[in-house]
Amino acid sequence: MEPTAGDLTDPLINHADGQLFLHEAFKIIVEEVLCKGTDVKEKVCEWREPEELARLLDLELREKGEPQENLLQRVRDVAKYSIKTSHPRFFNQQFAGVDYHSLAGRFLSEALNTNLFTYEVAPVFVLMEAEVLRGLRALVGWTEGDGLFCPGGSTSNMYAMNLARYRLYPEVKSQGLWSLPQLTVFTSPESHYSVKKGAAFMGFGMDNVILVKGAVPFLVSCTSGTTVQGAFDPLDRIANVCDKHKLWLHVDAAWGGSVLFSKKHSHLMKGVHRANSVAWNPHKMLVAGLQCSVLLLKDTTDLLKKCHCANATYLFQQDKFYDVNLDIGDKTVQCSRKVDCLKLWLMWKAVGSAGLEQRVDKAFLHARYVVDQMKKRDGFQLLRDVSSHLNQPEFVNVCFWFIPPSLRGKEKNPDYQNRLAKVAPVIKERMMKQGTMMVGYQPLGDRVNFFRITILSPLVSHKDMDFFLDEIERLGNDL
Amino acid sequence: MEPTAGDLTDPLINHADGQLFLHEAFKIIVEEVLCKGTDVKEKVCEWREPEELARLLDLELREKGEPQENLLQRVRDVAKYSIKTSHPRFFNQQFAGVDYHSLAGRFLSEALNTNLFTYEVAPVFVLMEAEVLRGLRALVGWTEGDGLFCPGGSTSNMYAMNLARYRLYPEVKSQGLWSLPQLTVFTSPESHYSVKKGAAFMGFGMDNVILVKGAVPFLVSCTSGTTVQGAFDPLDRIANVCDKHKLWLHVDAAWGGSVLFSKKHSHLMKGVHRANSVAWNPHKMLVAGLQCSVLLLKDTTDLLKKCHCANATYLFQQDKFYDVNLDIGDKTVQCSRKVDCLKLWLMWKAVGSAGLEQRVDKAFLHARYVVDQMKKRDGFQLLRDVSSHLNQPEFVNVCFWFIPPSLRGKEKNPDYQNRLAKVAPVIKERMMKQGTMMVGYQPLGDRVNFFRITILSPLVSHKDMDFFLDEIERLGNDL
Repeated sequence: MEPTAGDLTDPLINHADGQLFLHEAFKIIVEEVLCKGTDVKEKVCEWREPEELARLLDLELREKGEPQENLLQRVRDVAKYSIKTSHPRFFNQQFAGVDYHSLAGRFLSEALNTNLFTYEVAPVFVLMEAEVLRGLRALVGWTEGDGLFCPGGSTSNMYAMNLARYRLYPEVKSQGLWSLPQLTVFTSPESHYSVKKGAAFMGFGMDNVILVKGAVPFLVSCTSGTTVQGAFDPLDRIANVCDKHKLWLHVDAAWGGSVLFSKKHSHLMKGVHRANSVAWNPHKMLVAGLQCSVLLLKDTTDLLKKCHCANATYLFQQDKFYDVNLDIGDKTVQCSRKVDCLKLWLMWKAVGSAGLEQRVDKAFLHARYVVDQMKKRDGFQLLRDVSSHLNQPEFVNVCFWFIPPSLRGKEKNPDYQNRLAKVAPVIKERMMKQGTMMVGYQPLGDRVNFFRITILSPLVSHKDMDFFLDEIERLGNDL
Repeated sequence: MEPTAGDLTDPLINHADGQLFLHEAFKIIVEEVLCKGTDVKEKVCEWREPEELARLLDLELREKGEPQENLLQRVRDVAKYSIKTSHPRFFNQQFAGVDYHSLAGRFLSEALNTNLFTYEVAPVFVLMEAEVLRGLRALVGWTEGDGLFCPGGSTSNMYAMNLARYRLYPEVKSQGLWSLPQLTVFTSPESHYSVKKGAAFMGFGMDNVILVKGAVPFLVSCTSGTTVQGAFDPLDRIANVCDKHKLWLHVDAAWGGSVLFSKKHSHLMKGVHRANSVAWNPHKMLVAGLQCSVLLLKDTTDLLKKCHCANATYLFQQDKFYDVNLDIGDKTVQCSRKVDCLKLWLMWKAVGSAGLEQRVDKAFLHARYVVDQMKKRDGFQLLRDVSSHLNQPEFVNVCFWFIPPSLRGKEKNPDYQNRLAKVAPVIKERMMKQGTMMVGYQPLGDRVNFFRITILSPLVSHKDMDFFLDEIERLGNDL
């Protein structure tokens, strides 16, 4: 049917029908994702081969719409075949679990559907973001400064690089890199790949992430909590070097930053207050939900705005009737920017700093528990790593090989490493196809495939840890 | 209380309590945001001065958590003082309205809380994103190609720049811009500010967005639907030039792209199939919800991956048991990437391409209606713009001055422009403080402050348009 002016005088969307659908969908979400999806008696994943899954989901987009019952079945199917990342046996990534206050905040953010560029369209969130950033900066040890919520830690890291080069060479904003000497970023081999990706994206080139003779160092990117092993760079010692050479010190604490909530563990980031910038993802260890990622800055000279502003007059008119400093949109390279502060704010209000501290401390206790249990069992070999001088892992990453009975005591055999390398992928395939749990594996340098379990969800119990170890044995004992 | 190993054997979060809270919060969201927030008898905004609002919201984050009743009141307060962007009288930005199928998809995405980097953690969404991108590419006129959902149109535009320079000079990825000749981007003065911001961020420098003698042009960025006036660049003519000089043709169709759903209006983007890349934000005119933004590529050589990959072994192991081409995460410069496809997919399934076409056509009809009504009233003066040869606006942006009775017929007075410039800000302040509606204003070049109404929500009726005009008169007649 060709629409005409006549039949378009009324709204196209009927609120009553729409809200009825939303209610039904909400019920399915609670039932499938939040009840069944967190029940240890249910699967973590319902594995299907891609071709079969595409067929089951009937993904094709067509000319005509579908009746509501079909659509509700689709909601059910999407839930059914998606990974249950809130399941207590999902250990595959650096996010897991669910916090219901955060989730309520996320639903509210979605329903309110606004954008963080000006105070006029986001009065609550402009003020709230500032308050949350202030709270996080206080944990870093800064009483003033700046910051932003970013779409992920990689973006936060790129911002830090951009600010550092702008501080050193403000002309880069208008003239580009050609007018500058060759610049280099210092970072460790275990730093997150986003440092290299960012360097390529921003025109530095990946080769300039390591030291190049004759080039000008402008930024040191430290890591608090490396992705695989969970190691922390010694910030105080690095800050001494940065002070001496006036280098921008950036701390990528996307993973490890949450230790700052813990009186017991914040020492891992001792010296962080000396940094110029910190990237920190509360969507990881604090369970704030994807995405919740901040860049925190010590700067008080409005560098963020100077470096990124383009002064678009259609958004940032200077003759507004309120304080236009509240229009924070020109601090970012995004235009539309999602509201990511509300979920963290509501969760923080709900459990307090004390509750978040308890989550962090619990994650450490779980990691220690699983290590202790591994030591009591045959076949679990912890990775020799940077923290090998400790009895316990430094953070909540536990990296280990499972050595099947057929390989035990055969370390001297010439094919030992090759055979060991094949163990983790097979166990992984089996756990995915049976859907009982999920954990990641990877090689690192000359170390062949090993598992990395990161234990962070406040929904996990010791029983789940025990199950994890039993299940690794069950799936791998015949290899 | 210091947590101990003993009291941490059980999960910290209680599902029953959590789900009860979520249910109550859901009820408040429906009542406050979706019922009252879309009711013309209710306000679009509940204006408060920043200091007062901060006090009302009690934003401070404390050591101790709060009881559930307090937190539910906070949910209510956040809703109350937030802008009702789904209200039929919100015309302030290029997003507005609510689609309940999309919103259900957004709630489901939030609850599933996963990340688009690998097939193993997002099997449904890896396949779904590919299908949605395929559907959008088909509208551009491409039977193959590539693409990504990005956190906003600015990011999509930056990707296009990065791909274009990489195609021309692949060594930029490792060596940076220093090894390259100075590069320039061609774009129009009315293009979105993200082109300049992106150029600065990526090391080109803002000055190189206009022609510089001796520099190498590598990209032309066209606009389909400029932000303020809604103008469309003539793509076919520009494509001829790009063909001749082998330049990458990027089309920033963040705003205008949705015309491709309409048989009647897709001619505005005639020639778009000749582009190398298209940025398009379905969160704008299709009402898919923030954020929903895609970059579409004609490329079939895996440029996206070659240009951005860092081959992190902890995510992108090559010895997985499924086709590792499904692990799309190395195509992006993000690591965590939100699931933004589900909301669009579910909405598209619900109303079909025909339903989306109807929305686009309706928006045009509304724009024409409001222009016709303006012509019948005194005091509404349409902007002389690029499409002034037409009887009707080219797109759904309607730019106009309101001339209060005291200024009518006084165009020759020396202070006319100065006085006219002050009209829109005062009307805006009044409408915000009374909360009756919202619309944006801006100056442009030598044209003083004028209003821009963008009419896109499928919830709007002719009555709302009439109200809009009445209200502008009511608020501005005494100026």
